[in-house]
Amino acid sequence: MSDNDTKKCSIVVFSGDMDRVMGGFIIATTAAAMGMETSMFFTFWGLQTIKKKNRLTGRGLFGRMLGVMFKDIDGIGPSKMNFGGMGRWMFKKMMKAQNVATLPELRQMAIDLGVKLMPCLMSMDVMEITPDDLIEEATEPVGGATYVLEAQQADITLFV
Amino acid sequence: MSDNDTKKCSIVVFSGDMDRVMGGFIIATTAAAMGMETSMFFTFWGLQTIKKKNRLTGRGLFGRMLGVMFKDIDGIGPSKMNFGGMGRWMFKKMMKAQNVATLPELRQMAIDLGVKLMPCLMSMDVMEITPDDLIEEATEPVGGATYVLEAQQADITLFV
Amino acid sequence: MSDNDTKKCSIVVFSGDMDRVMGGFIIATTAAAMGMETSMFFTFWGLQTIKKKNRLTGRGLFGRMLGVMFKDIDGIGPSKMNFGGMGRWMFKKMMKAQNVATLPELRQMAIDLGVKLMPCLMSMDVMEITPDDLIEEATEPVGGATYVLEAQQADITLFV
Repeated sequence: MSDNDTKKCSIVVFSGDMDRVMGGFIIATTAAAMGMETSMFFTFWGLQTIKKKNRLTGRGLFGRMLGVMFKDIDGIGPSKMNFGGMGRWMFKKMMKAQNVATLPELRQMAIDLGVKLMPCLMSMDVMEITPDDLIEEATEPVGGATYVLEAQQADITLFV
Repeated sequence: MSDNDTKKCSIVVFSGDMDRVMGGFIIATTAAAMGMETSMFFTFWGLQTIKKKNRLTGRGLFGRMLGVMFKDIDGIGPSKMNFGGMGRWMFKKMMKAQNVATLPELRQMAIDLGVKLMPCLMSMDVMEITPDDLIEEATEPVGGATYVLEAQQADITLFV
Repeated sequence: MSDNDTKKCSIVVFSGDMDRVMGGFIIATTAAAMGMETSMFFTFWGLQTIKKKNRLTGRGLFGRMLGVMFKDIDGIGPSKMNFGGMGRWMFKKMMKAQNVATLPELRQMAIDLGVKLMPCLMSMDVMEITPDDLIEEATEPVGGATYVLEAQQADITLFV
């Protein structure tokens, strides 16, 4: 893959909470900017952060019910104090006031810095999400073994 | 313990949410199937996943109150959209439709693959859970130092 | 920094839930007691655990709203069964009955054992928390790059 001197960082993005996901993306972009080979593995609720905008997912009854609640990177709220969307708006205001990058901006930075965005195939199957539902910058859906191979080589491994 | 060439994976299972625990077990079984020496350290809510079925825990008033809400691996619900148990049922249906292993099946796979299931002694004391309350495949309850020794040697360390 | 033989442990404390934070501090103090060079990086809700007691944070409207809900290490509740503070009280009782160290005691142990407590600068800016709001034992606020440098060298990396 790469020479042995390159440090690596591997992050599982399981959560769909705006704040936890943000923590994951900030570490990923920082690591990549510092020259680390970085990959993110999006599973369960984390898939929301690499979903296309305004796209309803799901085929069957349950999949569609899930699809209605499945947001994109701009629509997910924080883990605490969301107050029906108010928290999301408040945090965005506060971040803007401090010139902190928004989640969509962080994701774009990750892409520009070459962070590998890997969707979890099994979660996609269960949640009835197709590759077409995801942003084009994501890799092909991968199985758990691909994640484990990446993480085995990594100097930093996190589960967000 | 083992020769230096064997890669190792160490996962803390703190959460009692069906979906997070599932993420932990999928990574653990995948790692073990790929030949990694894998251990899981069950603490706080995570202990529910190695509890015997239909067994009430707790001695004192608080312990019994906790025991009433303490489920087994089949009874825990997802972190989002549980809707009073409906979500648990819906996710199980969706997983079955995709032939994805259930949590009890994943735990059995972990046992068959030799994943070490270590209960956290201190959590057990606080929550008034005895070794008899846990499945027989779990190891003796261990302290934090045993976990740290495992994790120190591990190539993948996660906190779920 | 240190010689190559010293093992290292690096923990991101993102959560503000009493139980998750406790998991983080127990691992950190255990690792430090076993001679590992240990650092904790406090970000988002985790900052509550290194905040001074009885100190209101925030300057602007949103910051002050957040400040009202922002607790200190003694005021945060568990992730499950808090029941408006009852759970916090119940867990404290149960821990005391087992002679398990409380969170403030665990933090003091961490300080005494030389665990580095690093506050995340960016979270502090967004949440309008100043260095004066934090306990004196915390280091200067640091950026993500400082965390990544620590984590790169660490044998155990966790995100709590």
